[in-house]
Amino acid sequence: MTATPRTSPDELPLRPELRGRTPYGAPQLQVSYRLNTNENPHPLPDELLATLGEALGHAAVDLNRYPDRDAVALRADLAAYLSRGGAPIEPAQVWAANGSNEVLQQLLQAFGGAGRTALGFTPSYSMHPIISAGTGTAWVDGHRRADFTIDAAQAVAQVREVRPDVVFVTSPNNPTGTAVALETVEQLHDATEGMVVVDEAYAEFARTGTPSALTLLPGRPRLVVSRTMSKAFGMAGLRLGYLAADPAVVDAVQLVRLPYHLSSLTQAAARAALAHTDALLATVDAVKDQRDRIVAALPGLGLTSVPSDANFVLFGRFADAPAAWRALLDRDVLVRDVGIPGWLRVTAGTPAETDAFLAALTAVAPDHRLGD
Amino acid sequence: MTATPRTSPDELPLRPELRGRTPYGAPQLQVSYRLNTNENPHPLPDELLATLGEALGHAAVDLNRYPDRDAVALRADLAAYLSRGGAPIEPAQVWAANGSNEVLQQLLQAFGGAGRTALGFTPSYSMHPIISAGTGTAWVDGHRRADFTIDAAQAVAQVREVRPDVVFVTSPNNPTGTAVALETVEQLHDATEGMVVVDEAYAEFARTGTPSALTLLPGRPRLVVSRTMSKAFGMAGLRLGYLAADPAVVDAVQLVRLPYHLSSLTQAAARAALAHTDALLATVDAVKDQRDRIVAALPGLGLTSVPSDANFVLFGRFADAPAAWRALLDRDVLVRDVGIPGWLRVTAGTPAETDAFLAALTAVAPDHRLGD
Repeated sequence: MTATPRTSPDELPLRPELRGRTPYGAPQLQVSYRLNTNENPHPLPDELLATLGEALGHAAVDLNRYPDRDAVALRADLAAYLSRGGAPIEPAQVWAANGSNEVLQQLLQAFGGAGRTALGFTPSYSMHPIISAGTGTAWVDGHRRADFTIDAAQAVAQVREVRPDVVFVTSPNNPTGTAVALETVEQLHDATEGMVVVDEAYAEFARTGTPSALTLLPGRPRLVVSRTMSKAFGMAGLRLGYLAADPAVVDAVQLVRLPYHLSSLTQAAARAALAHTDALLATVDAVKDQRDRIVAALPGLGLTSVPSDANFVLFGRFADAPAAWRALLDRDVLVRDVGIPGWLRVTAGTPAETDAFLAALTAVAPDHRLGD
Repeated sequence: MTATPRTSPDELPLRPELRGRTPYGAPQLQVSYRLNTNENPHPLPDELLATLGEALGHAAVDLNRYPDRDAVALRADLAAYLSRGGAPIEPAQVWAANGSNEVLQQLLQAFGGAGRTALGFTPSYSMHPIISAGTGTAWVDGHRRADFTIDAAQAVAQVREVRPDVVFVTSPNNPTGTAVALETVEQLHDATEGMVVVDEAYAEFARTGTPSALTLLPGRPRLVVSRTMSKAFGMAGLRLGYLAADPAVVDAVQLVRLPYHLSSLTQAAARAALAHTDALLATVDAVKDQRDRIVAALPGLGLTSVPSDANFVLFGRFADAPAAWRALLDRDVLVRDVGIPGWLRVTAGTPAETDAFLAALTAVAPDHRLGD
């Protein structure tokens, strides 16, 4: 093939809406401080690594066999974990897939798709519109206030007007950081006949007293809460997302899931991790401390932030956010330009990462902050 | 939730075409002889288990980080494996996902979808129409002869008439077992402006002298060959499918793949397995021997089979295949009723499995074979 000129995807019978597009994803650059994808920088605790090795070795022996298609044991473990939050969640209410992205894709295959519409309040998790497009679901941008919060009355009015089949609510919101009031979720639920998906990828980092939408599940079969082990559990490499909802929702996604979608290794590793929940979540408070440290330091640099319930901070404002992004990268600190004019997003991690980030930002801020 | 009556998925705003459906999948029953999902019964060799343990332990240390989104190292290893077949395959020509099901889903998201059509020659791999439905792609059944082979002239005529966007060719075909002539693939390719996907999940089991469609790739950017590590490699639990095609096809699926779809553990385990390719594929000849033993024994029982290039045999004919299936199950042998009147499918595995299967079939055949 090397002798012939390179074919472009646009020369293939590609779907028209994909022509000229580039793949989604943050730059994967080699820098000293990778603060752009909201990973948990704390390595897994030694006690878990030992259990993991044992669990994976055990799973490897049966790798010639297909995995449990319904991931029954893992779903029971996830239900037990979610039940720690207070509201009892049963295994039949839980479904798991390769990252919450696949969970959301399955939900859209079941409840969205061609001729149907999803609505989410942008700026929010950028995969929501992308997965909608990938499943043929039309997308409508929901409104937010200038401070990035959702005006419940305005949101309800928009949902009543658009009549979406799926409403996404990201809480805490990514990339802005703030959790959404449960009253807003309730009102959105009551304003639609469609599904309401509350993406709680960052829920474990919420400020004290912030309730989860899990508490709203009883009596609301059109409500779904999605979670992930990528963030608070610090297992981004595992790709384990899950949802909690009425068992009927789990039945529905099983109609569209690819059979044996979740490998034996994934199921075994996730179960091993859940057996060490306390040790894993021990990093959450440390990360929240660094987040709050970043928030507290910003005013001294002539900058500000959006209130954060997550392991990241949206900070600004900059005259030219891409230029500020580049200036930080020149100082070996990779943050995320999420496309919101004037703002950048930084992941909160270790104290050393905060030190490096704040040192770089101190150098960069005078030249880049808005209004100087 | 336990106090309230159970909600049915049909009471949710489910897509209309999913209403009343049940999830796809073979029964997962506890029996002594599971010969229904074409697993490789040979456990992984000890030398691989040691390497796997090491590779997974190494990967676990970095599980807090996202995996390589592009699976560059794994794709290079897969390309090297495919190149052993003679036709050189470059890493940029290879893409991997969670099972060939996900590979096929990504292909349909890029080249199928709403308003587009896929055609496959049924009976064939039952996931092709299911994944088409899951991506909103219309499905057309292609014709086969009564002996389950594809009549190339008739197939070409049908493709010219239907003008599908994606043509599936399963070779060796599942569930019937026979490989498709490369000339047929070439003619189908030339008859369409759409993509041609040759599903070679069972290619390694083909009878000697059966060439792979990999040899047709140069100069045909609309041709895709999909493979899996579930069968010949005996790693069904790993969920590793892959494709080889023009690099433009890889570019195209990257537009629709979920970012970080392939976990660090999957990538590490697959690479460890590929480093032991020879040891893993050593079971292929043993399995082919058992397949041929089954084929040879059938006439003595008043039964016959479809010529097989796979690790399974479609055998019959029965007056009532579901009744014969049940009679075998009553003797602790689980085969697959693939819905073809008069026929059943059995996986070829170990000598002991063949013994058990043939003993059960000897008992069952007199009462169930057609024409007695």
